[in-house]
Amino acid sequence: MGRFAIGVDFGTNSVRAVVVDCADGLAVGQWVYGYRYGENGVILDARDPNLARQDPREYSEGFAAAVRGAVSDSRIDPGAVVGIGIDTTASTPLPVDANGLPLALDPRFAENTNALAWLWKDHTAHAEAGEITDLARRQGRPYLAKCGGAYSSEWFWAKILRCARVAPEVFEAAHSWIECADFVPAWATGTLASPVRGICAAGHKAMYGDGWGGLPSADFLAALDPRLATLRGRLYEEALPADRIAGLLMPGPAGECGLPTGIPVAVGAIDAHLGAVGSGVRPGVLVKIMGTSACDILATPGADRDIPGVSGVVPGSVIPSLIGIEAGQSAVGDLFDWWVRLTGRSHEDLSGEAERLQSGQSGLLALDWNNGNRCVLADPNLSGLLVGQSLHTTAGEVYRALIEATAFGALSIMRRLEEYEVEIEQVVCCGGIAEKSPLTMQIYADVFDRPIAVAGSPHTCALGAAIFGSVVGGVYASVQEAQAAMVPPPSHTYRPRPAAASTYRRLYAIYLRLHDAFGQGATNEIASVMKELIAIRTETRACSD
Amino acid sequence: MGRFAIGVDFGTNSVRAVVVDCADGLAVGQWVYGYRYGENGVILDARDPNLARQDPREYSEGFAAAVRGAVSDSRIDPGAVVGIGIDTTASTPLPVDANGLPLALDPRFAENTNALAWLWKDHTAHAEAGEITDLARRQGRPYLAKCGGAYSSEWFWAKILRCARVAPEVFEAAHSWIECADFVPAWATGTLASPVRGICAAGHKAMYGDGWGGLPSADFLAALDPRLATLRGRLYEEALPADRIAGLLMPGPAGECGLPTGIPVAVGAIDAHLGAVGSGVRPGVLVKIMGTSACDILATPGADRDIPGVSGVVPGSVIPSLIGIEAGQSAVGDLFDWWVRLTGRSHEDLSGEAERLQSGQSGLLALDWNNGNRCVLADPNLSGLLVGQSLHTTAGEVYRALIEATAFGALSIMRRLEEYEVEIEQVVCCGGIAEKSPLTMQIYADVFDRPIAVAGSPHTCALGAAIFGSVVGGVYASVQEAQAAMVPPPSHTYRPRPAAASTYRRLYAIYLRLHDAFGQGATNEIASVMKELIAIRTETRACSD
Repeated sequence: MGRFAIGVDFGTNSVRAVVVDCADGLAVGQWVYGYRYGENGVILDARDPNLARQDPREYSEGFAAAVRGAVSDSRIDPGAVVGIGIDTTASTPLPVDANGLPLALDPRFAENTNALAWLWKDHTAHAEAGEITDLARRQGRPYLAKCGGAYSSEWFWAKILRCARVAPEVFEAAHSWIECADFVPAWATGTLASPVRGICAAGHKAMYGDGWGGLPSADFLAALDPRLATLRGRLYEEALPADRIAGLLMPGPAGECGLPTGIPVAVGAIDAHLGAVGSGVRPGVLVKIMGTSACDILATPGADRDIPGVSGVVPGSVIPSLIGIEAGQSAVGDLFDWWVRLTGRSHEDLSGEAERLQSGQSGLLALDWNNGNRCVLADPNLSGLLVGQSLHTTAGEVYRALIEATAFGALSIMRRLEEYEVEIEQVVCCGGIAEKSPLTMQIYADVFDRPIAVAGSPHTCALGAAIFGSVVGGVYASVQEAQAAMVPPPSHTYRPRPAAASTYRRLYAIYLRLHDAFGQGATNEIASVMKELIAIRTETRACSD
Repeated sequence: MGRFAIGVDFGTNSVRAVVVDCADGLAVGQWVYGYRYGENGVILDARDPNLARQDPREYSEGFAAAVRGAVSDSRIDPGAVVGIGIDTTASTPLPVDANGLPLALDPRFAENTNALAWLWKDHTAHAEAGEITDLARRQGRPYLAKCGGAYSSEWFWAKILRCARVAPEVFEAAHSWIECADFVPAWATGTLASPVRGICAAGHKAMYGDGWGGLPSADFLAALDPRLATLRGRLYEEALPADRIAGLLMPGPAGECGLPTGIPVAVGAIDAHLGAVGSGVRPGVLVKIMGTSACDILATPGADRDIPGVSGVVPGSVIPSLIGIEAGQSAVGDLFDWWVRLTGRSHEDLSGEAERLQSGQSGLLALDWNNGNRCVLADPNLSGLLVGQSLHTTAGEVYRALIEATAFGALSIMRRLEEYEVEIEQVVCCGGIAEKSPLTMQIYADVFDRPIAVAGSPHTCALGAAIFGSVVGGVYASVQEAQAAMVPPPSHTYRPRPAAASTYRRLYAIYLRLHDAFGQGATNEIASVMKELIAIRTETRACSD
């Protein structure tokens, strides 16, 4: 009789559960549950476009519905399930009472959006993020060195500080705050009153580090707001990797899911990180999760180190024995969607036009900073740039230039990693763009001048979670062993085309000059930028005639 | 009984004739004749987008049809017509035989587009223009100082040299070459074999200057191509202003027009220059002709001088006793049309959206160089640039940014003129954009921070031509006297709004930094550009709330 693990992946709009055969990683059942509260699970405020919250009932109701659906879909014997892994968006913290129950369930706060989960893409705390960055820099704290040099408005402390400012009644009523990734395992295992915390969200979003004794010091937090220092004592002292058991499935949730009680549930982690595990991340393999934004994940041996401009370096956040590295770009698919909105044309239509072009032929070059630059400049206060347009420039040419811009941005991250001796032998992509846009993948292969594989699983995050389920279930002794058995080979590999790669080398050199001039004050000579682009355009057109 | 003058304005796609009362400048009759050959009068080549030619039959047939139509429309006694003035596009040279007849009429060249008139917007001669510029610079010739420092592919010598290279059979068969502006008066007055040449096209397009004895020297031309030096002897020694008589209307054309013979016909001139006269150009008044591109015309007293980056400084080219100055921008309406094509939306729609924005609110800034920069950089080898875009940037915001970019470009020309002590007390605009886009006019008033008048006549070029007709007809002793009587007051005046003007001062400072960095190699600090634009955006949004 087989052994099966369940992976549960909480996204922004839905939760997916898969039942996976531990022997080969094949999904034998799955279920997607769409969230029920707000707009596709996101609670918005017409007065403030930065606000994005989520009702914590999605997590309990979603877990039960999705797991029940997947088990039922699989037709396996529920007794054959050995373990459950869970990943969620992050940083998505929510305020809880002394029992660990969400304040949002308290009738006093039924109408207060500040008592909900603060969804990862909530940007109301940008001022607070700036304060945290400024204070850490001014005080010479080591915290930012592990998160790319700047704290983000999307992260734990910025959101909590914001809540203390704008909704003191919620802040005061909260006994503690918990990341969604920790809330779900605690809820499923009945450990809400003393939940286990995962290193993944703690290290990447809450400035948790062994180097400085866990969370940031009380005096640092007090300098931000004395109430944060007090809260610190009611948070946590320890954070664990996802191959550890958070608890055992308790009767209530087990019954709702149609599973026996007592199944081990792994410590929760962030979706992108487990997506990387499900894509086969290992030393030398960079996994890119490409959707509205892009997240780059690595797991590398050796000593913990600081990599300037890289959003996170956290031991154990991806694979327990290795250093987890997270980098990323704040707009990829979002950038293409923006151009689709501006031109009123479809992705299919624009892709079709862009596909017929040679690299360099448009004479265009863009910077991919419409939503700021997460890596390697760590500066949200930047903007897009497009140069090289003539009166003949077409919408398809701009679309292609935007794809190229994100590829150049991605290359600048890889170069930074390599400068800091992180080896990259192979690139594996997953996510919506990787699966749906061969044009983007081919351009990336050409710009990187190396093959790019597309992950073999269509649901890498849930597979990654199931891999941890198999480890806590005792099927494998390590994540690496589990990956070797359960991660499928790439579904496709894009290979670089030498002529395009050669043109892109020249374009990337120009991209870098603009990047440095607009992004970090380099006094590069940029007067020749337009002329060089015109020269490349002329040459490539002559060649394609 | 009244006295009437006729103005005939040959455009790119049609010719307009107006019959004007010399007493007050009112049009009493008019006619527009659409060209018949090619696409709306332009003969194109699908293999070469730079090629744009015109059949010279448009000029003779068009003159007859338009003048006959206007005279008939006016119901005046044809005997009351005292003079005719003519303006055309330029530089639009055509090859002619020893009798001055167009080679295009010779059956040997019936199928040869190189024997047609080379329309002003033909850009096949860009390499030849570069050669002329390089040679003049290398040899330290004074020619370019009068035409902005660079010779254009749109001009006389570049086109003729191109013809010698690509169609030697046409070049060899040509006894001479003549500008369209000189051809039409010569045809109407039967002086084709020894046509009078106008100073306007000669000075602005053919490097004709009194300072160096007329046309460029034979040894200079020989260094470009020995055949050009030979041709020089069959061109002309003298060029006259447009208040001089080219000849008297001869029987053939007179009959076709329904006019008596012997009416004096003025020396021909360029459309923009006579449009300025019809808009009331005088010392202190800058006239902007705003259409697909923009042409700035002044007539200023004092000594002839060089103004770097200004396309033309030619004594007598606008008003006979004054220094004519021509500057301009290579894309204005063309730039807005490009964005309309890219977004698939209408000017009305985009204008409506752009009108609802405050200056600075979009956070965008553009350079208006999609078609190169004519003034003050005199560099066709530049391109467009857009910076400041976010994921929320709308098509209407970009449309407004493009309008603002052309306004900043226009301001940089005014500043250059003022640096060289050309006084500008008043700005008068005419042309399609001036009449049809109140949004553009208001933005220009705000960016210039001074009132902008719109010319009172809806057909300023034809009115300007008629003013010269009235002078050669003896009604007035000078162009100035004729203007005082015949130019109507502005139809509308746009006044600057202080808040917008203040924002635009800040944006213009940023525009200049990009202009100098990308256009002339200044090592400006531009790392703060994006941050300053975001700061201006934030401030203006806060104010408009």
